[in-house]
Amino acid sequence: MKCRKCGREAVINMRQHKLALCDAHFLEWVSEQTQRFIEKYEMFTPQERILVAVSGGKDSLSLWDVLLRLGYRADGLYIGLGIDGGVDYSSQSHVMCDKFLAGIQADLADRRSQTADPQLAPADSNWKPTLHMVDLAHVYGETIPQVAARTTRGRGKPCSVCGLVKRHVMNRVARDGGYDVLTTGHNLDDEVAVLLGNTLSWNAGYLLRQAPVLPADKPGLARKVKPFFRFYERETAAYALVRGIEYIYDECPFAEGSTSIAHKEILNQMEKDSPGVKLRFYLDFLRAREQGLFAQQAAHVELNACDKCGQPTSAPGRCAFCRLWEGKKTAEVGQASQV
Amino acid sequence: MKCRKCGREAVINMRQHKLALCDAHFLEWVSEQTQRFIEKYEMFTPQERILVAVSGGKDSLSLWDVLLRLGYRADGLYIGLGIDGGVDYSSQSHVMCDKFLAGIQADLADRRSQTADPQLAPADSNWKPTLHMVDLAHVYGETIPQVAARTTRGRGKPCSVCGLVKRHVMNRVARDGGYDVLTTGHNLDDEVAVLLGNTLSWNAGYLLRQAPVLPADKPGLARKVKPFFRFYERETAAYALVRGIEYIYDECPFAEGSTSIAHKEILNQMEKDSPGVKLRFYLDFLRAREQGLFAQQAAHVELNACDKCGQPTSAPGRCAFCRLWEGKKTAEVGQASQV
Repeated sequence: MKCRKCGREAVINMRQHKLALCDAHFLEWVSEQTQRFIEKYEMFTPQERILVAVSGGKDSLSLWDVLLRLGYRADGLYIGLGIDGGVDYSSQSHVMCDKFLAGIQADLADRRSQTADPQLAPADSNWKPTLHMVDLAHVYGETIPQVAARTTRGRGKPCSVCGLVKRHVMNRVARDGGYDVLTTGHNLDDEVAVLLGNTLSWNAGYLLRQAPVLPADKPGLARKVKPFFRFYERETAAYALVRGIEYIYDECPFAEGSTSIAHKEILNQMEKDSPGVKLRFYLDFLRAREQGLFAQQAAHVELNACDKCGQPTSAPGRCAFCRLWEGKKTAEVGQASQV
Repeated sequence: MKCRKCGREAVINMRQHKLALCDAHFLEWVSEQTQRFIEKYEMFTPQERILVAVSGGKDSLSLWDVLLRLGYRADGLYIGLGIDGGVDYSSQSHVMCDKFLAGIQADLADRRSQTADPQLAPADSNWKPTLHMVDLAHVYGETIPQVAARTTRGRGKPCSVCGLVKRHVMNRVARDGGYDVLTTGHNLDDEVAVLLGNTLSWNAGYLLRQAPVLPADKPGLARKVKPFFRFYERETAAYALVRGIEYIYDECPFAEGSTSIAHKEILNQMEKDSPGVKLRFYLDFLRAREQGLFAQQAAHVELNACDKCGQPTSAPGRCAFCRLWEGKKTAEVGQASQV
């Protein structure tokens, strides 16, 4: 298979685009496509400050890499969940994020010294990316497995608690750090698996909200965007590989046997028989919703500020996150340490 | 595995219902459930005249069997499509329908002579089921493969033409015969495969119309109902087997490689991992639509009577069916011969 652009040996063939590319042109293509998605879906501008939630995996580190190389002012946020799973999962993930940051800082400094390309330092030539770190055990006194075991929300699997905690911490760091936008590395496979789940149960609330861009719930809060939502998982993995980004290969130990993994397998089988079906499923969904397929739900949820942390919540007093820690001594809205 | 009702050896285990039943209790259960669905979804009443579209397959013959045993006045309609496919498909299908009719007529006569059960002859004790037969080659001058090959609508596969022709003929026979309701043997697997296809492409028009009961498009036309839409395919097959109904095992030769078969395989795999997912997917869809998930589409399609056949059509002059035969000499709206 030859690269469509230069005829060299291709490293990847994307059947849904009928496009094979060599290593250099694949990196370029990912970068160009990301920029195109950012503009098309009005995710953010070069003037805005961006927070990238990084897990140490291929998607989020690749996203951070692409955004920085495109000249965006993107800082990272790593949340230490305290998950071990026999593979020292959380510590290893953190190491990957640190390594990535050291590498990209050196890269960017090199490129800055070699070129006068203003895109590499759009607003402030002294700016360099940082990594925020919030360690749950340190800040809140418990790891994810611990808090899940203590509360009914955990019910054997900590995934629901983990999602709640991550959303809260991401919001808080984005707000406290004055970020305009919070980005996550969700790829198409992630999004389509969620869409399939929401569709199988015809969950109106979720179907109406699932989107590559979620506006800020309240003034002052960051909007949430997913610049990689049109890339297949194998493409983000290929990007990390070709770019030489080290990342943690293990899935979260708690993900095993999850519905979303089962849905991904189903969708991959469909994709094999019908290349592009995953992408069309998601894009057709966005198009149909845009064209008014779904009724505007009359039941508008009123959000108010949590008594304790101030984040938007539909609950009358404290938000679900703050209630999670009630009765538990914490270091109280701890500062995110910075690298 | 034991029958839940009597403890005898079960012939089927329905994981989605956590229900295993012996042969006798399974037959009883299918019958009771069918009656329940007919009432719950207001499909028809014992006073109405029913036309069952029969293909010679397990679903439609089982449906006809159940309806007759429940005491409904249900006649059959067999459409001779002229499909051979190396297995003499259409002729064999017709033979199965004839055989079934002979058998059930004898059965019903026996039961009538033995009991005074008025349900067996609800309106007229002399009534007995008949089978309408419309042979396309005879009535319209061409078989399905022939008309598909002649028209652009065929495009290699005659399935689209076949669907159009069958809908037209079913409507016509129902109208000419004064039937109140047209029933088809679609089972849950059929319905869910279609739903998955409509969902993957987010086809608003199809999503809004897919239902177990479709009201008559125009006064005087029969409504269309699917009394078996909640039974899994393996259940209708088991019913035919246990009841001793002979049916044609072959799929239509043109169905091979179809999208709906691919979707059925995907859904069966999901069902294996998560028993009941097919049923929930469909019922949740009906519930969500009932609860107003979808917007009422403003674009109401105005139907008018076809210039030639009088059936409702969105086209200004002749309907798609009549245009299909233009330039082709036909025996002109031939009479359905009756057995």
